[in-house]
Amino acid sequence: MSAPLTVGVDIGGTKVAAGLVDGQGRVHAFERASTPHRSTEPRVVEDVVVEVVQALLNQAANQGMPVAAVGVGAAGFVAADRATVTFAPHLSWRGEPLRDRLQQRLSLPISVDNDANAAAWAEYRFGAGRGHARLVTLTLGTGIGGAIVMDGRVERGQHGMAGEFGHMIMVPQGRRCECGNRGCWEQYASGNVLQREGQALTRAGGPFAAELERRSAGRPAAVSGSIVTEAALAGDPAAQELLAEVGRWLGLGLANLAAALDPGCIVIGGGVIAAGDLILDPAREEMARNLPGRGHRPVAPIVAAELGPRAGLIGAADLGRQDFLRSQQQRQGEGQ
Amino acid sequence: MSAPLTVGVDIGGTKVAAGLVDGQGRVHAFERASTPHRSTEPRVVEDVVVEVVQALLNQAANQGMPVAAVGVGAAGFVAADRATVTFAPHLSWRGEPLRDRLQQRLSLPISVDNDANAAAWAEYRFGAGRGHARLVTLTLGTGIGGAIVMDGRVERGQHGMAGEFGHMIMVPQGRRCECGNRGCWEQYASGNVLQREGQALTRAGGPFAAELERRSAGRPAAVSGSIVTEAALAGDPAAQELLAEVGRWLGLGLANLAAALDPGCIVIGGGVIAAGDLILDPAREEMARNLPGRGHRPVAPIVAAELGPRAGLIGAADLGRQDFLRSQQQRQGEGQ
Repeated sequence: MSAPLTVGVDIGGTKVAAGLVDGQGRVHAFERASTPHRSTEPRVVEDVVVEVVQALLNQAANQGMPVAAVGVGAAGFVAADRATVTFAPHLSWRGEPLRDRLQQRLSLPISVDNDANAAAWAEYRFGAGRGHARLVTLTLGTGIGGAIVMDGRVERGQHGMAGEFGHMIMVPQGRRCECGNRGCWEQYASGNVLQREGQALTRAGGPFAAELERRSAGRPAAVSGSIVTEAALAGDPAAQELLAEVGRWLGLGLANLAAALDPGCIVIGGGVIAAGDLILDPAREEMARNLPGRGHRPVAPIVAAELGPRAGLIGAADLGRQDFLRSQQQRQGEGQ
Repeated sequence: MSAPLTVGVDIGGTKVAAGLVDGQGRVHAFERASTPHRSTEPRVVEDVVVEVVQALLNQAANQGMPVAAVGVGAAGFVAADRATVTFAPHLSWRGEPLRDRLQQRLSLPISVDNDANAAAWAEYRFGAGRGHARLVTLTLGTGIGGAIVMDGRVERGQHGMAGEFGHMIMVPQGRRCECGNRGCWEQYASGNVLQREGQALTRAGGPFAAELERRSAGRPAAVSGSIVTEAALAGDPAAQELLAEVGRWLGLGLANLAAALDPGCIVIGGGVIAAGDLILDPAREEMARNLPGRGHRPVAPIVAAELGPRAGLIGAADLGRQDFLRSQQQRQGEGQ
């Protein structure tokens, strides 16, 4: 049986993106819609999801392409049953039975997973992590999103909460984090840090910050992570230093993950990765320097994610496909 | 088929312990011998292993009990092929083909694993981790030994080096570690730390250290981890404070492991665990306080290991049994 088409849905804090995806991870059609603010009813986000999925199913039907299943990646904690969203910080979901809700409104089999797991799965199957049965992925954005592929399967943990790397504590009694704790890794290595430090440097003024000042038209609050990245790529030493600093904190935390998990490859995604080796090289150096057994062990490569912002929906679609194929096999096994 | 008897061997830095173990993890016969110092030939340690295994096989033969396989747990990095010891800090092995060497001298199938993996497997199958498919185990001794059971199997990592928790960096630019890095977790939470801090406190003198001074006959260098533990169990507030401090560092690191791996249970072994809740309660509090999503998530229990110093050989024997049964099944499958 050739791999069937599936729909992948990526539910973020501000938008829903969905695509019609084939067995090679290619996106044949794409839909996107904004999600309402977190204060609204859970049902409203469901409506948006059903809408974009139906639009894709209609397109597929018009072209005579059968669709086998729908895979959903959601920005929140998904329980180990892979049916319930325990908690979604940017949506109004608390113990939301997402799979059943969608199942009532869509006639195809539904799979639900965490969005970071979905993106990691995509990079493992079709992206920068191809061929590595043990993979750690990080997405650097507001914070650090993370996921683990071990032995060729997504490792979700006992309660579906594995991969919360951003809140590993890197500096005891360090910077306060939005999670309420102090010293979390994402307070030292994320897109937000780049923005925070870029603004602080610009506010401090001085000739070293001249280029960032120019690019933000003299308004420190206008300095964003992407302004820092652009300045660095254009050769500004101050911006490059900020990226290197974030890169070193990234590498230090990755050394800890490598000590614990010994992955074959580490994939880094998110907007910051536009800086390429300006952030990855310092991360590589710092990781190698802080690995246990350094000198006596292979060092996992740190590579940039390849699939960009569509990784989540591509991975969700493929996880939906895997679940569908497994249930088909089980049915055939029972039929014998 | 009832589970066959196997021999389990635990190769440490200073001794080899071995036992004849049944399918319920019970040890029916036990042998123990010293290993020569690290400067000697690898062959000498092999001789010791072969000797204790033969002694056990003779005992089994005399009682008419057939033995199916030999499982070995070794204190060193075992490559992903589970045949070669890449590096053993306390033995003279560098790239030692241990499985083949033993195979040439013993007529039973041989399995090789890292000793911490073997001990973790024993606690998972027969000890404090029973019923938890996702388990993290730590052994607090000179440093921190660690291992991971995920989805009901030992997670060894891509290069057989997973579970090196003791060298996760907890304090950037912190205390120098023997591994050459700084701020490693085992510099803050281990049996050695208890000894180091106990000695420092005693050396500082003062009425707070009176009980430790008495127990070490006024010689600070004589304060050991077990002296501190005994004093704490007898009610000495200074010793209790030292245990609580180590416990809090333990809990902080465990919060990081729980953030990354989301285990169902955490098992702590090693000599320090004689202190029981005097160390585990502070660890539990500190872990709960530093978990991401605290208040919105289940918290994995932290429990004391149950199998003591024989865990390594019991686990090695059981891993040998699992490998043997798997190869039997494969052979039967091919015979059909």
